[in-house]
Amino acid sequence: MALKGDVLLVYLPCQAPPAFIEATSSRFPELQVRWFEAPIVDFKLLPPDHLPPEAWEGVTMMCIYHVPKVETVPKVRFFQVASAGLDMWVNYPKYLDPQVLFCNASGCQPPQIAEWVIGTFLSHEHHLQIYAKQQEQELWRPRLELGMEVSTGRRMGVLGYGGIGRQCARLAQALGMEVYAYTLRERSTPESRRDETYHVPGTGDPDGVVPSKWFSGGSRKDVNHFLSQDLDLLVVSLPLSDCTKGLLSTEQFQILSQNRKKTFVCNVARGPVIDTDALVHALENGLLRGAAVDVTDPEPLPQGHPLWKAPNFFLTPHISWQSSRYWDNLAGLLLENLERLATGRPAVNVERRTT
Amino acid sequence: MALKGDVLLVYLPCQAPPAFIEATSSRFPELQVRWFEAPIVDFKLLPPDHLPPEAWEGVTMMCIYHVPKVETVPKVRFFQVASAGLDMWVNYPKYLDPQVLFCNASGCQPPQIAEWVIGTFLSHEHHLQIYAKQQEQELWRPRLELGMEVSTGRRMGVLGYGGIGRQCARLAQALGMEVYAYTLRERSTPESRRDETYHVPGTGDPDGVVPSKWFSGGSRKDVNHFLSQDLDLLVVSLPLSDCTKGLLSTEQFQILSQNRKKTFVCNVARGPVIDTDALVHALENGLLRGAAVDVTDPEPLPQGHPLWKAPNFFLTPHISWQSSRYWDNLAGLLLENLERLATGRPAVNVERRTT
Repeated sequence: MALKGDVLLVYLPCQAPPAFIEATSSRFPELQVRWFEAPIVDFKLLPPDHLPPEAWEGVTMMCIYHVPKVETVPKVRFFQVASAGLDMWVNYPKYLDPQVLFCNASGCQPPQIAEWVIGTFLSHEHHLQIYAKQQEQELWRPRLELGMEVSTGRRMGVLGYGGIGRQCARLAQALGMEVYAYTLRERSTPESRRDETYHVPGTGDPDGVVPSKWFSGGSRKDVNHFLSQDLDLLVVSLPLSDCTKGLLSTEQFQILSQNRKKTFVCNVARGPVIDTDALVHALENGLLRGAAVDVTDPEPLPQGHPLWKAPNFFLTPHISWQSSRYWDNLAGLLLENLERLATGRPAVNVERRTT
Repeated sequence: MALKGDVLLVYLPCQAPPAFIEATSSRFPELQVRWFEAPIVDFKLLPPDHLPPEAWEGVTMMCIYHVPKVETVPKVRFFQVASAGLDMWVNYPKYLDPQVLFCNASGCQPPQIAEWVIGTFLSHEHHLQIYAKQQEQELWRPRLELGMEVSTGRRMGVLGYGGIGRQCARLAQALGMEVYAYTLRERSTPESRRDETYHVPGTGDPDGVVPSKWFSGGSRKDVNHFLSQDLDLLVVSLPLSDCTKGLLSTEQFQILSQNRKKTFVCNVARGPVIDTDALVHALENGLLRGAAVDVTDPEPLPQGHPLWKAPNFFLTPHISWQSSRYWDNLAGLLLENLERLATGRPAVNVERRTT
């Protein structure tokens, strides 16, 4: 079982961490590791199409961000994917093969994405963009008339209480906020509220003890009920699926607009979870307190799209997942899963179990 | 003792909260309360000079931000000052009179100031200003080459572990950071690490259990030793005094520059704690990771001053104390102190005890 005969191809934008090399060579001496550093060109991760045919030869395991051409990976039985969401993979033939194990990278990103959520929220509430402009103009002008709502006593709703949502909840609690959680399936017992996916030690809410109230359901009615809970901040952190596509649209923004102080929306999930036209309309008509998104639909957002200039709106180009520790975390997760495969234990972060 | 014959003048930029009116009239029916709403003109709180002479007549207690003309307040025996630092008052004759009780507003501001600290820090680390500029240009460009250091495993040093520093520590802990605390007096026992000043419930670190290491001392040598602890983020949150004036100068920035990944400095104390010329030099020469300040020296910072355009620098015009809950918190603190005075118990947040 010691991964004899296995060939692992890693294609990530970093060199192999020394700890990873050391661990694999001592634990799995018969595993062949081919680590290729993915180039970043024009600010984008290059796909692995330039790798020579020998690189793909006999590969049985992969750790990669891109979806590789299916004809290059006939023997792969385990994909450690380098993103938390696997929506790019859902129509991939290998993904549909129950013999192939797919694991996501959940838990590698929550600390930085939660920082992005709280950072963009606080930046909006404390008017940091306005003061940045005044600084450019060398203008000392306290803008007391703008007011400032401190987080203490306010309420965060987390739509999708996974690793990202849980670290957002941890930060919100430290800010003195109340947290309401929403999950697809009901979580009424302490056991059901636990999260078994990988998390960085000292972060998150693995036991699910932060939220003061839990909501659940798969219908729009269930979601609408959650959205009407007088939320000050709504974190959208659920996977994209047929069920969640267009989840927040005209009706939902109308509901949010009736919250006491209106709602600030942070989308760190996927662009299509929000109906973009409805978002533009909601922002332009003051239905929301504001919004910050790291994902859009379409993505990239084309020049001239009205969302760019919507009021009280902040956008970053799908970068909230990035951090100096991301690849180290991912290598750690890959190692954990190699160990589990070698010893016949179930992998962590399984997206589709092998039969 | 029920404050009979006392006259309380409140001069704050808000109307009296209903809860305050109700509590004072039921608890202290013989206390005369004169509440004046301080106008905000041209974005500045107007001093109370325009109040009619009758307003000042017989006043024995005040709750105010500004230092009133000393001849208008001959009988005042208790000042509930509306700021955490009393440096504006140190040369005020009344302040030098041991018969007069001065209480500061510590504890009303920490939640919002700590949000400002974490918000400006995360804004810098996540390059939010850069992305805001790209958004203006409708430019979708992930800037992976900039890197992003997540807070997990990084270290925050808190210079002055009072209410503000303690709430910063609470947030840093939630982010997965390690916290080192610095205090003037040694705090080696659990008792000495407690903080008895007012704090908003659910915030701060009243028991002093967050820091993993404590430092102390009154000398530059002691401070320098603290600054050399490989700090990623340095929060400056100590009172301005002869001792702390110019505390961070050329030598200190040189020490900070030797930290592994350099240090980001947040000053939410008072401008003169930092030697401004040395700060400009440190930023222009890359000795610091960056800096965010809500206070400057001189203040207001004049147009044309080189600090405005220093690299990796963010400035707000002394507004981090502001929040929607500030005046409510202050009225609550004032009420608590009236109650204590009426019942002969020691006040909270005493700056200078009456003899």
